[in-house]
Amino acid sequence: MRRIEKSDIEQIALGAALLGTGGGGDPAIGRLMAEAAIDRWGPVTLLTPDEVPDDAWVLPISGIGAPTVSIEKLPSWQEMDAAFEDAEQALGQQAFATMPIEIGGGNSLLPIVVAARRGIPMVDADAMGRAFPESQMVSFALDGMVTRFACLADEKGNRVTIRPATARWQELLARPLVDAMGGSAIVCDYPVTGAELRASALAGTVALAQRTGRAILDPTVNCGDPLGAVLAETSGFLLLRAKIVDLQRTTAGGFVRGTVTLAGIDEDRGRTLTISFQNEFLFAHEDGRPVAMTPDLIALLDRDTGRPWTTESLRYGMRVHLVAMPCHPRWRTSAGLRSVGPQYFGYDVPYAPIERLARQEVA
Amino acid sequence: MRRIEKSDIEQIALGAALLGTGGGGDPAIGRLMAEAAIDRWGPVTLLTPDEVPDDAWVLPISGIGAPTVSIEKLPSWQEMDAAFEDAEQALGQQAFATMPIEIGGGNSLLPIVVAARRGIPMVDADAMGRAFPESQMVSFALDGMVTRFACLADEKGNRVTIRPATARWQELLARPLVDAMGGSAIVCDYPVTGAELRASALAGTVALAQRTGRAILDPTVNCGDPLGAVLAETSGFLLLRAKIVDLQRTTAGGFVRGTVTLAGIDEDRGRTLTISFQNEFLFAHEDGRPVAMTPDLIALLDRDTGRPWTTESLRYGMRVHLVAMPCHPRWRTSAGLRSVGPQYFGYDVPYAPIERLARQEVA
Repeated sequence: MRRIEKSDIEQIALGAALLGTGGGGDPAIGRLMAEAAIDRWGPVTLLTPDEVPDDAWVLPISGIGAPTVSIEKLPSWQEMDAAFEDAEQALGQQAFATMPIEIGGGNSLLPIVVAARRGIPMVDADAMGRAFPESQMVSFALDGMVTRFACLADEKGNRVTIRPATARWQELLARPLVDAMGGSAIVCDYPVTGAELRASALAGTVALAQRTGRAILDPTVNCGDPLGAVLAETSGFLLLRAKIVDLQRTTAGGFVRGTVTLAGIDEDRGRTLTISFQNEFLFAHEDGRPVAMTPDLIALLDRDTGRPWTTESLRYGMRVHLVAMPCHPRWRTSAGLRSVGPQYFGYDVPYAPIERLARQEVA
Repeated sequence: MRRIEKSDIEQIALGAALLGTGGGGDPAIGRLMAEAAIDRWGPVTLLTPDEVPDDAWVLPISGIGAPTVSIEKLPSWQEMDAAFEDAEQALGQQAFATMPIEIGGGNSLLPIVVAARRGIPMVDADAMGRAFPESQMVSFALDGMVTRFACLADEKGNRVTIRPATARWQELLARPLVDAMGGSAIVCDYPVTGAELRASALAGTVALAQRTGRAILDPTVNCGDPLGAVLAETSGFLLLRAKIVDLQRTTAGGFVRGTVTLAGIDEDRGRTLTISFQNEFLFAHEDGRPVAMTPDLIALLDRDTGRPWTTESLRYGMRVHLVAMPCHPRWRTSAGLRSVGPQYFGYDVPYAPIERLARQEVA
């Protein structure tokens, strides 16, 4: 158990945005909301999964939809309260704690907001160890769980509770709903008991996000080299020093999808890489040769500050460092790769871990 | 109060299909389901609205989606029970009775099935006095009511409860859900108290459907002229004796939409009429001149038997009688026409009642 103070928020937001691999929401918005919540209601207690009683309910809350929309249609109390209260109603009792469903600049911060507002703790865990675009891409589903319900709410006052037949059906029903709601919404799904949480969630990922954020921000940690400190913290690889020379981005069907093309600069002059994304970066290739792929983490960091850029904030001409990091080992199992590997997303290549791809690069 | 016996079902199904104005579901399927339910659980009590206590809950149940789908993906107990029980759960108590939300060959019969299965009465009323394609096209919404919830269920085991911000948002959220569910589903919406029912529902429409069906079927009533008996019962007009010479029909977005072109035969040889539909027939014109339009009822009757054809069962070459009948007066108010008039559906003409159009025809 420890406290999340206002001074922790920027580190968590930036680190979560980096581990959010282009998705998971905007860290500036997440930071402002969480700081305002702590200003108003005080600091938040962060529990380790071990500190949650076996039969206590933990209720994740997150944004769902296209980040291109959610940076303009900001979440409000109204829909966070509505989704959380509908979920508690469905549970038949109040939640003991909340938690992030994924790591992301928005989605790791929303639970801090809710925890502060409701006076409940947050658990230091999530269900992805990064951000993924679809609802069934969670460790809970990997362990065979179907969410008991998913409570969605939007800013218009619409409230919807889905009780899906399978984990995949949650996504198939929620996505067109979110699209109809205007492209983004708030959702509470995968309520878990303390025992289920310990069995299935990925522990310590809020702390990991904060350490990653500190590596970017704190000169006493990074000694003026945020990139090097981030790579050390995440076991990551620098793949390219580049500028953005092309960007295709479409918001439709509750997602933002597209590609970004990078032209190498400095030592990498003459090289061209393309990364495709569906909310999150999914697949990077150089002249057709894969250089990094889902479920490993792909991130674009600002060349000067080391801060991550989310897919909705990319612009032509930005100078960036392309980095990639190994994902949580659970996603590298055969079940994990069926759920979130390159072939699920339509890339017709076998999964190759970033450690191997990066070694080939050097060789 | 009276009983609906098995021998009543065919009359109700055919009459409801005719008043369903091309939509509302297939009467053969509705009939088989209701007859089987009465065989198994016994006859159903039909109450007049006056026989429902002020504070008793009446819970409508219906199919939603494209009839082209629901004639292949038949409703089952599983989703009828699921939707009804989710609705009772949301009400916090059992329903006193059920009722049809619209008149239609399927949607007037489903409540009979549910009433027989659950041992509750059905109320002789509905909220349209015909069938309409969209959820907000109900007398309850015309009176300013927003459904407290809409509980949807499909055959895959998915269950969704929508609490919409407005009557229109119910439709905007339910339709893409139904599309994702495969094009058709079961829904319980607009739970009403006895007092609300009496204030807002259209009374006596199950009995009207049965009288209309008897006019088609019973030679002691129609004296061998089902068409004439139907026109007398519904104050309807015969607009064309015809055969179907063209048919465009597309199932998408949770609806079936299209046009059917009729070439006059016998006394009407040389004339050509086109009717467009969205589940229900909406607008009939002859060389651009409107001859019948929503919210008045448009129906195609088999030339030989007088039985109605639904839009999903039309085929090239069928010999039919095109008839039209005045709608319930509530839809002819300015609020009613804003909700279901020709302009709502994109036909850029002012509403003209069928009585006037048919007189011009004769003149």
